[in-house]
Amino acid sequence: MRIAYLGPTHSFTHETLTLLYPEAEPVPAPSIREAVRLAEEGEVDKAFIPLENSFNGPVHETLDALAETMLHISLCVERRIRLVAAGNPKADKVYGHPHALAAASKWIEEHMPDATPVPAPSTSLAAQLAARENQACICSRKAAEANNLEILGEDVGPKDNYTRFILLEWRDNPREADRTALVAILPDKPGALYRFLEPLARHNVNLTMIYSRPARTTPWRYLFYLEMEGSRTNPAIADALKEARTRSLMLKILGSYPLKQLKH
Amino acid sequence: MRIAYLGPTHSFTHETLTLLYPEAEPVPAPSIREAVRLAEEGEVDKAFIPLENSFNGPVHETLDALAETMLHISLCVERRIRLVAAGNPKADKVYGHPHALAAASKWIEEHMPDATPVPAPSTSLAAQLAARENQACICSRKAAEANNLEILGEDVGPKDNYTRFILLEWRDNPREADRTALVAILPDKPGALYRFLEPLARHNVNLTMIYSRPARTTPWRYLFYLEMEGSRTNPAIADALKEARTRSLMLKILGSYPLKQLKH
Repeated sequence: MRIAYLGPTHSFTHETLTLLYPEAEPVPAPSIREAVRLAEEGEVDKAFIPLENSFNGPVHETLDALAETMLHISLCVERRIRLVAAGNPKADKVYGHPHALAAASKWIEEHMPDATPVPAPSTSLAAQLAARENQACICSRKAAEANNLEILGEDVGPKDNYTRFILLEWRDNPREADRTALVAILPDKPGALYRFLEPLARHNVNLTMIYSRPARTTPWRYLFYLEMEGSRTNPAIADALKEARTRSLMLKILGSYPLKQLKH
Repeated sequence: MRIAYLGPTHSFTHETLTLLYPEAEPVPAPSIREAVRLAEEGEVDKAFIPLENSFNGPVHETLDALAETMLHISLCVERRIRLVAAGNPKADKVYGHPHALAAASKWIEEHMPDATPVPAPSTSLAAQLAARENQACICSRKAAEANNLEILGEDVGPKDNYTRFILLEWRDNPREADRTALVAILPDKPGALYRFLEPLARHNVNLTMIYSRPARTTPWRYLFYLEMEGSRTNPAIADALKEARTRSLMLKILGSYPLKQLKH
């Protein structure tokens, strides 16, 4: 099984994927959009990308890709993110993914007050840059080790730092599903969101995520991304979604899928 | 009047502030949090920061700062963002704020397919980096001119690219207000968002913005940011907010303020 993921190697996405499917062949992609395209065009079987972080919120590229793709979410995996600071203790730059820099900002202020945080496209690229330029970075322990960087601090981010990753493929997995996700565009009038949520509330559906993103075709219009507990094969959820659909301009089910918690 | 803004000079925030208040003394701050802190501690009179972009969504640092500050939003300004590509036409790097790079991604793919987009903390720093390293960037015309960069492309972003900026100070301006904003934490049970929105729908209040951000104290809990049409002195809105408050764990009014559209 070939699975495209947001690379490069030693990114958190890569690490999580290899823990989840040690037998699969991971195929690095330079962007989330590209990982999804590889799966859509059949060059790989599935795509594995980050969805949201408990500290920094959603990954916008993923939400935007979900609105456009015809693939479905077939699995969601939650994993605690442990960050280390690594590299040159006298560095004047600390490289890191913007989310990792934000999560470690208190540690950086306390322990490396003279260093400037510099955003990098991924934690693994941050580690490569730190190694090449004799600077420091915020990354995973594996990325630090792969680049022979000295560990300057352990667990430099907040404790409640979890990331949820999703697996995308043509088929989803409604029979064993814990969650269902959708994206919708609502009419532009007072109470539209309220009326859309009403059938879900009436059927006692528990929302586990709600985000909005600009609908890029029209300024200040939004796409709504919702995730709820339960499968769309559950009769209450099926009824609620059927009614909610009539109160939207567009409603697309992104999938019903199991939620798995990785312990390491 | 001294106004702290998200710097450095020639950022879009700076340009918009000088168009709005040509007489004020603009004080650059290195981050949104720092601009807000300067106003909170009385070192400046007000803070001027970006709130959301019609193409890329909210500015997370601003939402996070709004949850914590005791300052109020006293004005919101909407301005069309015109981006140029500038610098060395044979560059192998294109610097830009991540939002600007996302907005200009089609232009970069078509006109500079061999150049790598490299994120920078602001459009004006991107222009400085491009000038120093003989590379290219996505920035405002003024930032390109200030750094003596050749203009490679005009209007390289989407046409519907607007940014809304907000002014923060101790007092807000409910008498002449067009909009009211709030942040709320809701109970963790089915239908909580639905029940919170019900009084607003019943009073025909039109929501103009809704975003959620992680409540960093607990994983997978959210803060909700809402903006609606009208002042909180409007009786229907006052009643709706009073009822909505009883259905929340916490509701903080961020301000009632005029909405101004800048034509250039």
